[in-house]
Amino acid sequence: MEIRLEDMEDFARGAAFLGTGGGGDPYIGRLLAENAIKQYGAPKVITADELDDDANVLTAAMLGSPPVLLEKGCSGEDLDLAINRLEEKLGRKADAIMPIEIGGVNSTLPIMAAARLGLPLVDADGMGRAFPEIQMVTFSVYGCSATPLVITDEHLNSVVVETHDAKRAEDFVRAVAIQMGLSVMISAYPLTGKQVKDYAVHGTMSLALGIGQAIREGRLKENPVDRLIDYLRTTPYYNHAKVLFDGKVTDLKRETTRGFAIGHCHLEALDNSGRKMEVTFQNEHLVARENGEIRAIVPDLICMIDRETAEPVPVEHLRYGQRLKVIGTSAAPIMRTPEALEVFGPHKFGLDAEFTPIEELK
Amino acid sequence: MEIRLEDMEDFARGAAFLGTGGGGDPYIGRLLAENAIKQYGAPKVITADELDDDANVLTAAMLGSPPVLLEKGCSGEDLDLAINRLEEKLGRKADAIMPIEIGGVNSTLPIMAAARLGLPLVDADGMGRAFPEIQMVTFSVYGCSATPLVITDEHLNSVVVETHDAKRAEDFVRAVAIQMGLSVMISAYPLTGKQVKDYAVHGTMSLALGIGQAIREGRLKENPVDRLIDYLRTTPYYNHAKVLFDGKVTDLKRETTRGFAIGHCHLEALDNSGRKMEVTFQNEHLVARENGEIRAIVPDLICMIDRETAEPVPVEHLRYGQRLKVIGTSAAPIMRTPEALEVFGPHKFGLDAEFTPIEELK
Repeated sequence: MEIRLEDMEDFARGAAFLGTGGGGDPYIGRLLAENAIKQYGAPKVITADELDDDANVLTAAMLGSPPVLLEKGCSGEDLDLAINRLEEKLGRKADAIMPIEIGGVNSTLPIMAAARLGLPLVDADGMGRAFPEIQMVTFSVYGCSATPLVITDEHLNSVVVETHDAKRAEDFVRAVAIQMGLSVMISAYPLTGKQVKDYAVHGTMSLALGIGQAIREGRLKENPVDRLIDYLRTTPYYNHAKVLFDGKVTDLKRETTRGFAIGHCHLEALDNSGRKMEVTFQNEHLVARENGEIRAIVPDLICMIDRETAEPVPVEHLRYGQRLKVIGTSAAPIMRTPEALEVFGPHKFGLDAEFTPIEELK
Repeated sequence: MEIRLEDMEDFARGAAFLGTGGGGDPYIGRLLAENAIKQYGAPKVITADELDDDANVLTAAMLGSPPVLLEKGCSGEDLDLAINRLEEKLGRKADAIMPIEIGGVNSTLPIMAAARLGLPLVDADGMGRAFPEIQMVTFSVYGCSATPLVITDEHLNSVVVETHDAKRAEDFVRAVAIQMGLSVMISAYPLTGKQVKDYAVHGTMSLALGIGQAIREGRLKENPVDRLIDYLRTTPYYNHAKVLFDGKVTDLKRETTRGFAIGHCHLEALDNSGRKMEVTFQNEHLVARENGEIRAIVPDLICMIDRETAEPVPVEHLRYGQRLKVIGTSAAPIMRTPEALEVFGPHKFGLDAEFTPIEELK
């Protein structure tokens, strides 16, 4: 894969789809990455196979509530500082940067970081989607430590956290992030090349680009939603893809609380069938129910897109009256194991439901 | 000054007095220090003058809500870890340990830390009393950085904070401390020997011991309250000392909220004169009002003691019906400057009142 400036719009659109409603506004993230590429050149993108087994791979991301990032932005220096402080703590420079999540702005911020620091970027991430909490990552599932980790704010204040388990790190980081204004930069999960090879969700930067391209191509030739679904069905993870619902937004509740954007969105079918869908979210969409029946549930992906243009609509841009299609897809197999469901299955979001793969649901 | 095991009871009692209601239970702190002295030997106590100007002096303390410390205790390893992580961050070993506050348990925890680590202990602190927040220290007033600082919990999780100002450090640390269970170990304000010489409140460990001894001696011979007042009047800081009130507790409100023990205590005079006193606190006593008129106010010291034995009664041990004397004393001159009042004067505690020295009040 190569990151070209002219691909950034497609890439950010694909990343917004994989953000499943969360992960932050792709437009902001795209501008930040484009600026960095113009100023420092595009980072080299490598596959995990190209890493030495003992390479030092650091992740780069923002953490907090996406609607806040929209207003606050980020300078780049804050993310540099997070990475540099982590290098300092580890006593070792980074050999490569990797997204921790491919969904939303956290797909593009690592491009900015890699460009600014002159480091290669690994075509992989820790979930093949987005998730709201630090421990909700394959690396955590399979025993890699989330810490030491560093968070920084726009004033270049920094906090280094070391804990015995990732959930405690999440507790501490969330508390500080709220004090910092709820949109902070983070470098976490220092990994060896071997750990990346074994536990990452691979090729997800390429997949984000592919999704964005499919939507754009669809707009030129045919129905972009159909083209998107066709493309998803060719991918190794998102192959069980379907349109779950076609409707308009009739009710929306969205609160920034406990450090997250939490709420639900109700849709009514456009075909006057009276069918209704409710989608609940904690930054990301968690479960889609049609007339009370589950149609898709975490960790499988649920994304709202404009019903005409297939443009992904993040939670912070949901509006009353919008006409949307709700798309569901399977998650990567490594995200659906019993161990993985222990970390980010439905129960972990307070849902009173078991995970059922989307391909087994109506 | 020398720390002898047989002095610890007096020392802890004096430190409880200087805790002005807060600073944590002296009994717990004494047990911890005594155990450490028995196991590792008493640390050498030095004056600030004995420090090299470029010596690396680290403080050691607990932070949180004293009533929680009472239940949770501390192992010693947690405080060692805080100091070691700060040394690691600074790239330099500590040359000496110093209390950040002499009031309450934070007078005895540095004894434990110095004993465990084999380091000398400086006979000085950053306020000559106790205060609830990180920035409320002379070093902060006079331009020394509170950070890098480290907090640790009983599970040996750690958090390193670097900020541009001490109040932000307080915000971050308080948020994490609440997550950690509201009683955590902290090493902060890394200082040079020169800074300690210039900005510390000197000799306060000796003064704590002197106060405790005066109370004990008073119990053997005469009225311990009178003996205490006589002793305070010989000291360089607490010389404006008086009994503000003699009464019983008629109302008590004490809540653990925002990370502090906050509330008020009402007393009624025992002489049936109908006089009433209200003392409000945020961990430490803030202001004492008699029939609405201010008798003493921060940063001057307000302490409640048993009216017969002169035993200091910390906020967490206040009870309805207790018969107490309320003592007020002046604070060290370095604590009463306009710059100092900007950091820990009445307004900083939300009080709608100006500081007036106790010697100028009725």
